[in-house]
Amino acid sequence: MANPCGPLAVHLLICIALMLFAHQVAPAPVTRRFKWDVEYIMWAPDCQQSVMIGINGKFPGPTITANAGDVISVEVTNNLHTEGIVIHWHGIKQIGTPWADGTASISQCPIESGGNFTYEFLVDKPGTFFYHGHFGMQRAAGLYGSLIVNATDKQPEPFAADYDGEHSMLLSDWYHENVYAQAAGLDGKDKHWQWVGEPQTLLINGRGQFGCSLGITRDRRACDRRKKDAFCPEGDKSERCEMIRRSECGPFCEGTKCSPVAFDVEPGKTYRLRIASTTSLSALNVQVQGHKLTVVEADGNFVEPFEVTDIDIYSGESYSVLLKTDQRPSSYWISVGVRGRRPKTQPALAILNYTNSKPDSWPSGVTPETPAWDNVTRSKEFTYRIKARAGTARPPAAVDRRITMLNTQNRFKGHIKWAINHVTLSLPATPYLGAYFYGIEDVAFDATAESPDTYDRSYDIEKPPDAQAPEAMAPTTASDRVFRIASGAVVDVVLQNANALEAGVSEVHPWHLHGHDFWVLGYGDGVYEHERDSGKLNTANPPLRNTVVLFPHGWTVLRFVADNPGVWAFHCHIEPHLHLGMGVIFAEGMEKLRELNVPREAVTCGAAKSVAALPLAPAVAPSPP
Amino acid sequence: MANPCGPLAVHLLICIALMLFAHQVAPAPVTRRFKWDVEYIMWAPDCQQSVMIGINGKFPGPTITANAGDVISVEVTNNLHTEGIVIHWHGIKQIGTPWADGTASISQCPIESGGNFTYEFLVDKPGTFFYHGHFGMQRAAGLYGSLIVNATDKQPEPFAADYDGEHSMLLSDWYHENVYAQAAGLDGKDKHWQWVGEPQTLLINGRGQFGCSLGITRDRRACDRRKKDAFCPEGDKSERCEMIRRSECGPFCEGTKCSPVAFDVEPGKTYRLRIASTTSLSALNVQVQGHKLTVVEADGNFVEPFEVTDIDIYSGESYSVLLKTDQRPSSYWISVGVRGRRPKTQPALAILNYTNSKPDSWPSGVTPETPAWDNVTRSKEFTYRIKARAGTARPPAAVDRRITMLNTQNRFKGHIKWAINHVTLSLPATPYLGAYFYGIEDVAFDATAESPDTYDRSYDIEKPPDAQAPEAMAPTTASDRVFRIASGAVVDVVLQNANALEAGVSEVHPWHLHGHDFWVLGYGDGVYEHERDSGKLNTANPPLRNTVVLFPHGWTVLRFVADNPGVWAFHCHIEPHLHLGMGVIFAEGMEKLRELNVPREAVTCGAAKSVAALPLAPAVAPSPP
Repeated sequence: MANPCGPLAVHLLICIALMLFAHQVAPAPVTRRFKWDVEYIMWAPDCQQSVMIGINGKFPGPTITANAGDVISVEVTNNLHTEGIVIHWHGIKQIGTPWADGTASISQCPIESGGNFTYEFLVDKPGTFFYHGHFGMQRAAGLYGSLIVNATDKQPEPFAADYDGEHSMLLSDWYHENVYAQAAGLDGKDKHWQWVGEPQTLLINGRGQFGCSLGITRDRRACDRRKKDAFCPEGDKSERCEMIRRSECGPFCEGTKCSPVAFDVEPGKTYRLRIASTTSLSALNVQVQGHKLTVVEADGNFVEPFEVTDIDIYSGESYSVLLKTDQRPSSYWISVGVRGRRPKTQPALAILNYTNSKPDSWPSGVTPETPAWDNVTRSKEFTYRIKARAGTARPPAAVDRRITMLNTQNRFKGHIKWAINHVTLSLPATPYLGAYFYGIEDVAFDATAESPDTYDRSYDIEKPPDAQAPEAMAPTTASDRVFRIASGAVVDVVLQNANALEAGVSEVHPWHLHGHDFWVLGYGDGVYEHERDSGKLNTANPPLRNTVVLFPHGWTVLRFVADNPGVWAFHCHIEPHLHLGMGVIFAEGMEKLRELNVPREAVTCGAAKSVAALPLAPAVAPSPP
Repeated sequence: MANPCGPLAVHLLICIALMLFAHQVAPAPVTRRFKWDVEYIMWAPDCQQSVMIGINGKFPGPTITANAGDVISVEVTNNLHTEGIVIHWHGIKQIGTPWADGTASISQCPIESGGNFTYEFLVDKPGTFFYHGHFGMQRAAGLYGSLIVNATDKQPEPFAADYDGEHSMLLSDWYHENVYAQAAGLDGKDKHWQWVGEPQTLLINGRGQFGCSLGITRDRRACDRRKKDAFCPEGDKSERCEMIRRSECGPFCEGTKCSPVAFDVEPGKTYRLRIASTTSLSALNVQVQGHKLTVVEADGNFVEPFEVTDIDIYSGESYSVLLKTDQRPSSYWISVGVRGRRPKTQPALAILNYTNSKPDSWPSGVTPETPAWDNVTRSKEFTYRIKARAGTARPPAAVDRRITMLNTQNRFKGHIKWAINHVTLSLPATPYLGAYFYGIEDVAFDATAESPDTYDRSYDIEKPPDAQAPEAMAPTTASDRVFRIASGAVVDVVLQNANALEAGVSEVHPWHLHGHDFWVLGYGDGVYEHERDSGKLNTANPPLRNTVVLFPHGWTVLRFVADNPGVWAFHCHIEPHLHLGMGVIFAEGMEKLRELNVPREAVTCGAAKSVAALPLAPAVAPSPP
């Protein structure tokens, strides 16, 4: 940081500390220990009282801040009465600690009600991360928080000198229907199948205002004034404005659980905004009224800086953007709205507050308008601009294996599921890692064969599954099969989107890989044809990421190196899509599993309970590349 | 049954079958196998849509019907996504199968999400039973159903000849707030502590009508007519009547999930009504308009028949009553209302329908009025009349141990708890049965001492805990300690009620014992003084039960023989009271545990996971009587 110190004397001590921290002390790696109680809490994230899963009595969970190279140790006690829990550290690679990845059925047994488990893992590099539940739909129930890893002298960030201070925004969406009911709907058969619909509220750092975008005013007079003009000019009879006119304004005062977040900044500086999205469903767009944003980080990786008026962010992604406080000292709207699906949810609002502006001068003018939800071209323009910053590792040229994954929405035994190559993921009761550890793959899941690594190319991605020619449409199956990946293999994954069940509809899916970053080699429309398209892939400066978007009726190609033995989920980060089976499992380097010190208590459940007493089976034979 | 056959020819075959069954065939004991999927379902038990825990897609769960001497085998698959489950077979003694008692933390590990467990147990005697979840508050979430064990020639019922047919009513109550929020409120500290309040609806066989006791009419005209007269005479401005006037009537037609139950009967017969209550909170009163009831069974035990106009039934209890269809052929209200707490819930209504009455002639006249909720004298009169039928086993005269249990509502670290001798039960993560089986009591729970078997007699039960003299008030503690009971011991338990936190308030608690029936030796007001009161106890014909009521500011004495090795809960059957710690644990005959064939998978969780690989520890030393 160039100069974190403003003119105010009161900040002096903090500034000294910050400067010491940023420039003069190379902090020695430490183990940072936390004790968390996970429990039900009554909370009003959007001013509507609801039960949520909280940590240490609060929502969202505590922000973890660490330095690159530190070890994080979180002792989690499960005080939920009947639910197991796990916590996934999104974006952390878990090098050598695959049992700490926090994925139920995959890396770990759920922490039992009344039990506890200590996650201990290295945060190997700086970046903007977060954590969340990864069991059932507990993320959507509120089990999440921020995880910020600061750069160090040993692992500096190339844009460190470009900013003076930072703020963090964890974005999410919130449903008034509880996740048990959401799951009941998604599990329903035939006419009982029920989609979750759009969220009621968008949240910024866990705060939103349901049914009242006027919540950010301080008093009724200001509210009434705003009703009259800024938000909704007289004569605007849109549903949104009618709703605003009907709505009550308060009391969304500061201090309540749903008062809007205000980020204080000083004029004439540059700020880093860390923005991460852990939405259940919504793709979001973030704007700061009157300010440009320069993107510098994506998913903990450095990107070639580029300037935009707004960013799109999909569930599972994170960005850092730099913002110059170069406008008239005042306060400005930060607006977060829905893209990619027809929005039924009001944009979330926060405030960028210049500290020397009048304390109760609230933002004026109209809130920034979210770009049209269905302007996919605009979304692609943003996404396609993201390139690795110079100095980023380049992908290996030689590829050992290519897996093509057709993304479809399928009918299956009266249910609606998402499927990859016509297989919908059905997770086992015994975590895969435990199954391999104890050598009981045969009883723990279907280990008779691997997941299919391509689909019948006569499948027409422009048509719904129901309209396919019979020979193109393999029968949909539910399976817990895995992809076995040999240690060290270089793997290309082609994500191939297709039409959903409804004609003319293809959805956006943000795919997230555990245990790895991957290079995003390219995107395209229509069907990926290797002979035609592989030459166009970007191997010069492809960005490294852990989450990547798959656009409607298009394809995305990514590459990763299987250098981290473990069982890793790769899945659509939309919670109800994963619930409906939209994911696959990579069992990577299982022949090296015995070299790891897997704690038995992490993997002893399901079928492993009856074999835990037995000596371990011989190590797994090497898998094909 | 004397004559199960009515005059109608269509019933002939059924009648022949029934007669064969009842009189001519001594059914050989069989194993009755069931497969259950436990899952979330969207249901409308009181016409309001809600998520519930269902079995095989329905609420309530399927009725199990068996013959005395049969073995029930239920393979339960847990399809809840994050919750474990257990199922308790209420009133079944689990002779030799203590791991099948279905109590989480006590007899068994929760069945994991995605896992399954087969409960297999003997139903050793005829009677009216039920089953329900016994983990967290899953009973209140809808996880329950009926379990009817028919008499056989080998195990006849003394009143078999007195009735012609039977119907079954499982009573429950229903909250619109989900159990996770209920638990969050009960777990809350200081001002965040929140009592669950009164239920929104009472259910009969899983059906009720929220906010509209007119739901039982078939059409709007009849509804409007009823609004005018029968229910609420003009001029009655009571809140109840105002609510009825505001309410909508339909469409509560037959076939919807919330239409009222109609029990068809033929005139001039006698019917056995099996009535069981699995309410979360409410004590209930059951009446049948214009009909008397003769009580013949309580909790699967025969009682000396006595005639009443209505019965009180507490959560955890069951009764059989005989009803003569000696009224004018018509249809009659069955009304179930709240007693013991100031009711805020409309009575539930069902219909006793004489089959030869006009099919759409609905009951006329005012529904039977529930006796005043606070008329405790009337409640006691009913309860005190219950005596064992001649021929019932009498209790042993020699008592090995007497445990006195003071029931208080206590403040504890900012929470409100229920406590026994100032100890509030806090269940461990490792089930006790597993802890004893693996010999890891020391790590699994506080085995350093036993639960206290009495309280300081200077405690004034007429005063709140806060008003006690300091020397009378032991500090409240939370503990998972047990009572160790030697095999074969004869144990007397004195339940001593006291004042709650609010001055002048003492609540009704129905106490339920697992693994046993007990003799109810007596009740009294005030403090039980052994020297003064023991001589008045009834050892001549005390009724056998598994649940017994403790009246406000009074005492109840019961006796049981510790003839069934296992770890058994003894607790208030009010779900939120148990949640707040109102129970104790009897670890009975643990020195005989190794003679039982405890399935490892039933008890391998919590601390047992890390020792499951080890050989079993030496058997437990005999415990003192």
